[in-house]
Amino acid sequence: MDSFSFYNPTRIHLGSGMIKVLGQEMSGAGVRKCLFVAGGGSIRQNSVHTQVCESLKASQIDWIEAWGVQANPTLEKSRELIEVARQENVDSILAVGGGSVIDSAKATAAGFFLDDVWNAFTGKERINKALPVFTVLTLSATGSEMNGTAVITNTEERKKWGIGSPLLYPKVSIIDPSVQCSLPFKQTVNGALDAMAHILEYIFMDETAAATLAVDAALLRTIAEMTDRLKENSCDLAARANLAWSATLALNGISGAGLQGGDWACHTIEHSFSALNPRIAHGEGLGVIFPAWIEYVSERQPERFLHWARNVWSADSVALALRRFRDKIASWGSATSLRDLGIRESDLGELRDIIMQSRGVGRIVKFAAGEIEALLMLAF
Amino acid sequence: MDSFSFYNPTRIHLGSGMIKVLGQEMSGAGVRKCLFVAGGGSIRQNSVHTQVCESLKASQIDWIEAWGVQANPTLEKSRELIEVARQENVDSILAVGGGSVIDSAKATAAGFFLDDVWNAFTGKERINKALPVFTVLTLSATGSEMNGTAVITNTEERKKWGIGSPLLYPKVSIIDPSVQCSLPFKQTVNGALDAMAHILEYIFMDETAAATLAVDAALLRTIAEMTDRLKENSCDLAARANLAWSATLALNGISGAGLQGGDWACHTIEHSFSALNPRIAHGEGLGVIFPAWIEYVSERQPERFLHWARNVWSADSVALALRRFRDKIASWGSATSLRDLGIRESDLGELRDIIMQSRGVGRIVKFAAGEIEALLMLAF
Repeated sequence: MDSFSFYNPTRIHLGSGMIKVLGQEMSGAGVRKCLFVAGGGSIRQNSVHTQVCESLKASQIDWIEAWGVQANPTLEKSRELIEVARQENVDSILAVGGGSVIDSAKATAAGFFLDDVWNAFTGKERINKALPVFTVLTLSATGSEMNGTAVITNTEERKKWGIGSPLLYPKVSIIDPSVQCSLPFKQTVNGALDAMAHILEYIFMDETAAATLAVDAALLRTIAEMTDRLKENSCDLAARANLAWSATLALNGISGAGLQGGDWACHTIEHSFSALNPRIAHGEGLGVIFPAWIEYVSERQPERFLHWARNVWSADSVALALRRFRDKIASWGSATSLRDLGIRESDLGELRDIIMQSRGVGRIVKFAAGEIEALLMLAF
Repeated sequence: MDSFSFYNPTRIHLGSGMIKVLGQEMSGAGVRKCLFVAGGGSIRQNSVHTQVCESLKASQIDWIEAWGVQANPTLEKSRELIEVARQENVDSILAVGGGSVIDSAKATAAGFFLDDVWNAFTGKERINKALPVFTVLTLSATGSEMNGTAVITNTEERKKWGIGSPLLYPKVSIIDPSVQCSLPFKQTVNGALDAMAHILEYIFMDETAAATLAVDAALLRTIAEMTDRLKENSCDLAARANLAWSATLALNGISGAGLQGGDWACHTIEHSFSALNPRIAHGEGLGVIFPAWIEYVSERQPERFLHWARNVWSADSVALALRRFRDKIASWGSATSLRDLGIRESDLGELRDIIMQSRGVGRIVKFAAGEIEALLMLAF
């Protein structure tokens, strides 16, 4: 088990009706006026917008709304948000939405104090200061509600890169599972696959971290079981709550404790899919590439994958576990091949080139260009 | 699944050799002079004292040492520590030891600003301020290294009571598993049983909290497996690290998320054992009372215990799981009855009276005096 440090100061309130505590939490933290960052408008349909506004009003907090953050959020949008935050002289950022909205809010919180926010991604500027971030989560997936990282896409340069800083942990995140009842099942699945992928990036790194591996297997099983339940009943509140909390734990430091920082090849590879076609959902892309990656790497190092096979899929072999994993993904109606994602064989060369721009692909296997091609063919 | 809030700002450094970062962490937090609280001197034998002093010196931190905290730490000792802290005008408390030392440090940190520290336990005074607490853990058991509570014994009044405040979370806790290699197996077992008991206090509360229940079963299995490994090899470092992290997770908020605050009957009852005889180890006492409590309560509500039976002990019935739990405890050489603890049948009436002084015993079953007698007889 590798040495590790754990620090996570985000305060979580999880439960139905919890949005009402937002205003007093923000006001208790000294907030007077926030930038209210949101996506395409779904929060107007499910009463979240109303609940948030009422809570802010009740605590005499002023706000300015900035809409239009999309999936695979762009650098352009973050720059626009930073401009508004400066013009309106806000003292904090409130993200109301899913991971894209929260990541944009974090980039804004840091970029507020930088010459240009992209400099934080390239390493040209350091994050020494950030506005406090508060979140109301509406889609459990990325774990961004309880960590200090953000991923933003520079569309021009086709780079989907990340930043991380202890200053970017949200101060408070509200997770009301009931607001996720109105999600289409497809989005629930994308979220579940994203959360599973976060855990999968860690668990093959070090077989000696028994406590974390046991916890991670428990979370993977729970995510699969809760997704099954939500397929039957989109408003199974306990399933929503358990899926939500599992997704938060999947990337808040708990799932990676003692696991050497994780592998992250599959995330690097999947980011190339959205660079090629931003309409490909991150979670669905991960659901395609992860089984292929496990198949590819387990051929060389089968013993690394046995714990997962046994403890997540009750399977005595990696092959059987893989079959069960792929069957599960298919049973949720999610893509199981690059072809299903709308990627053509003639795109694979371009995907490989985008992937090879990254600073290293994978750690268990460090992928060279030729191996990336082989892996993409396997996923095709 | 019950609504819950989670907040835990303690920074953890877990790993061999981690004590060396202590000084810079404390100095980074603005510490100039701390009260160095310790137990009976074992940290002089295993080099921990030397490592801590070197790290403090390297960061120009001044300290004053206060020794002699014992198991089941007393109010008297906390009052003495507060006196020293005031006389020496320290700006922080450093606990180097197990849960008793850390709990005494927390009581000192709060009591420093109170008329009398016991007032915080009785509710006569509120904790509005506390000195920052830092810890170097030398025995994994109580979880106090990553939570905001402390339990202290008022010997005169025979009360073993607790306090809790967000101000009492340690700022930084160092968990170096290698320093626990020199522990006698008996102490390792007491720690493991204490950690298991913390999880057991939660898991029978609400069968809908699937994510937390799965994580908790994973932790219980891990604790049992790591203890088995340490019986064979006291210096199995990975087992030490995994047991340590499991014990921390057992009472840092993760194990109780969505579980309504837990039951805590067994802790209340066990506290009476140490009130009767302070030489009874807390963990060993819990290892006696918990199986009896499960037997007693499961006769009325068997379905509550099936998840635990299946997922922790791979047993299809509570009876079989209980047998496996008791066999495991016996295999570690720990007491399995009150008689083993040196308690006589003639003591049971007094125990009952001490227990009934508490503000309520249990929540799944609220024990009246007659039921306490029956339960004690079962444990006898």
